[in-house]
Amino acid sequence: MAVYTHVDPDDLAALVARYDIGTVLSCKGIAEGVENSNFLLETTGGRFILTLYEKRVQQGDLPFFVDLLDHLAARGCPVPAMIRDRDGIAIQKISERSACLIQFLPGISLTHPTEGQCHAAGAALGAMHRAVADFSSARENSMGRAHWRGVAEATGNLDAVLPGLQAIVDDELAFLDANWPTDIPAHVIHADLFPDNVLMLGDTVTGLIDFYFAASDFRAYDVAVTHASWTFSDDGNRCSNAAARALMQGYLREVALSPDEIAVLPLLARGAALRFLLTRAHDWVHTPADALVTRKDPSPFLNRLRRYQAADAAALFLTA
Amino acid sequence: MAVYTHVDPDDLAALVARYDIGTVLSCKGIAEGVENSNFLLETTGGRFILTLYEKRVQQGDLPFFVDLLDHLAARGCPVPAMIRDRDGIAIQKISERSACLIQFLPGISLTHPTEGQCHAAGAALGAMHRAVADFSSARENSMGRAHWRGVAEATGNLDAVLPGLQAIVDDELAFLDANWPTDIPAHVIHADLFPDNVLMLGDTVTGLIDFYFAASDFRAYDVAVTHASWTFSDDGNRCSNAAARALMQGYLREVALSPDEIAVLPLLARGAALRFLLTRAHDWVHTPADALVTRKDPSPFLNRLRRYQAADAAALFLTA
Repeated sequence: MAVYTHVDPDDLAALVARYDIGTVLSCKGIAEGVENSNFLLETTGGRFILTLYEKRVQQGDLPFFVDLLDHLAARGCPVPAMIRDRDGIAIQKISERSACLIQFLPGISLTHPTEGQCHAAGAALGAMHRAVADFSSARENSMGRAHWRGVAEATGNLDAVLPGLQAIVDDELAFLDANWPTDIPAHVIHADLFPDNVLMLGDTVTGLIDFYFAASDFRAYDVAVTHASWTFSDDGNRCSNAAARALMQGYLREVALSPDEIAVLPLLARGAALRFLLTRAHDWVHTPADALVTRKDPSPFLNRLRRYQAADAAALFLTA
Repeated sequence: MAVYTHVDPDDLAALVARYDIGTVLSCKGIAEGVENSNFLLETTGGRFILTLYEKRVQQGDLPFFVDLLDHLAARGCPVPAMIRDRDGIAIQKISERSACLIQFLPGISLTHPTEGQCHAAGAALGAMHRAVADFSSARENSMGRAHWRGVAEATGNLDAVLPGLQAIVDDELAFLDANWPTDIPAHVIHADLFPDNVLMLGDTVTGLIDFYFAASDFRAYDVAVTHASWTFSDDGNRCSNAAARALMQGYLREVALSPDEIAVLPLLARGAALRFLLTRAHDWVHTPADALVTRKDPSPFLNRLRRYQAADAAALFLTA
C-alpha cells in the first residue's frame, strides 16, 4: 500500500483538462500498488485510476507498459486501458512525476480464492498468454533467475532474516543454475499475478492489473508464479490440491502446455518461491523502519519452496 | 493517512447483504482519516465510505457521532449521512471492528484555498453551527483547553521537539488559564475543520467530513480553529488578511457573533494554535517510527501561535 506524492488540486484540474473526460468530482489516494502512488479519480466523464510513478527505472519502461496494456486491451483481455489525452499522449507529468490516467475496472481482490476462482484466474492467465504471443516488444526480467543471486548478495547475511536461510538459498541457487530449462516457450509474462493483482466479481475475472513486473520469460514460469500465489495457505505450509488442479485446468483450457513445460513446472515453482523469498528478505532488511510500506514476511515463501522441493511436488501440477 | 485493517471479501459481502444497496462491485482502501480505516465501496446500489473504527474510545462515542450526522443531514448540511441497514442499524461489526457505512460525497480537499473558497468554508461552518444549535447531545472536548497541559506533560521534554518550546508552552498555558473566557456561546462544534475535512467543487462546499473530534465547546473556538487552518501559508509564517477576512465574512453571514466573541477570537486562536502544536508534538514523540501514519511537523503551529500572540493579531479577525 502506498500513497507517496501529494497532488495539488490545481495541478490535477490542469491535467484532467488535457483529456476529454470532463472536470474533477473527486480524487482519493488509494492503498494499492507498492511502488507507485495511486488515486481513484472521478470526473464528470467517468472514473479512472491516476498512477504516479515514483521510481526512475519504471519511468523509462513506461512506454513498454503502455504498449503492452494497449495490446492486451485490443485483444479483449480484462486489463485497464491507458487513457489518451486529446493529443494522443498517455504518459503525462504531474507533481514532478510521470503519470498515467488508467481505466477504472470493477472487481475486488480475493483473500482466499475458491476452486472456481482459481480456475477463472488460470483461464485469465492463459487467455492473456494467447493474446501476448504476437506482442513484439520485449523487456528483460529484472526479477528473473539471472538476478536472484544478486538479490541474495544485496540482502547480506540471510541467516539474520531466518536462521539457516543462507545455506538453503545457496543450495537452491546452485540447483536452479544447474537445472533451469533453456528451450521452452517464452514471451512477455505478467510475472506477479498474485490474487492482489486480479480483480474478480464472483467467479468472473474483471481485471488483471499491476503489470509493472511484466517482462520476457518462460510462459510456464508465469504459471508457476500464479500457482505459488493462489494455491497455498497464508503461511505457505499447505498447498490445496483442488485449488491447484482448478488453476491448471483453467490455464490449459486456453494454452496447451507441452509435456516438457509440464515436467519442469515444479522446478519453475521452486524458482518462483525463491524469487519472492529473496525479494521479501531483501525488502525486510532494507525497508526503512519508518517507511509507509508494509514489509512482507519472507517465511511463507520459504515454506512454499520446501513444498516444491518435495519428491511428490509434481502431484501439485496435475493437469487432469 | 491510514488503512490499518484488512477486510475479507466474504465478510464484506455479508455486511453489504444487510443493506438495501445491492452487491459489491469494488472496494478500495483509501488514504483518509488518521485514526480509522476507510474504504471506498461501490455496490450495484451506489458508492459509500466504509469506516472501521480502530480505537476503543471512539467506539463508545459512535452513537453520538451517528446522531450528530443525522441531525445535521436532516437540516441540509452537506455532511455524509450514516446509512442504515434493513433493521435500522448504523453501527455494525466487521473484522472485529465497529464499522459504519457512510454516504459518499463528491468534492476534493483543497491545498491552497482561494478567498472565495475561504468565504465558502466560513459560511459552511456558520450554517453548521446554526443547524447544531438545537442538537441536544453533548460530548466533552477531550482535546479542549482543560486537557492541553496533560498533552504537554505526556509529551515529555518539549525542548527535544523544538528548542525553547517548553518555556513557550508553559507561558502560554499560564496565560490561557488566566484569560480563557467562560461565558460565551457553546454547543457541539466540529473542532477540526482543516481544509482536509472540507470537500469542495470550485467555490461550493460539497462535504464537511471527519466529525470524530466533534465535542461541546465555544462556537467561536471552532471559528478560531478554522481560521488557524485555512488562512496561513503552509509553514505557518504568513496569515493572509484577505483569506481571513473572507472566512470571517462567510461565517458572519450565517452566525452573528457577539462583540464579546469577536474580542476573544485572537485569544481563542492562540489556544487553537497551541492545541495543534501540542498534539503534533505529542504524536511526533510517540508515533512509532514504523507506523503507517505520517507524522506532522509541529513547527507550523508554533509559527501560527507567535502570529496570534502579536499585538496586532485582532487585525486578522476583521469582520468588515
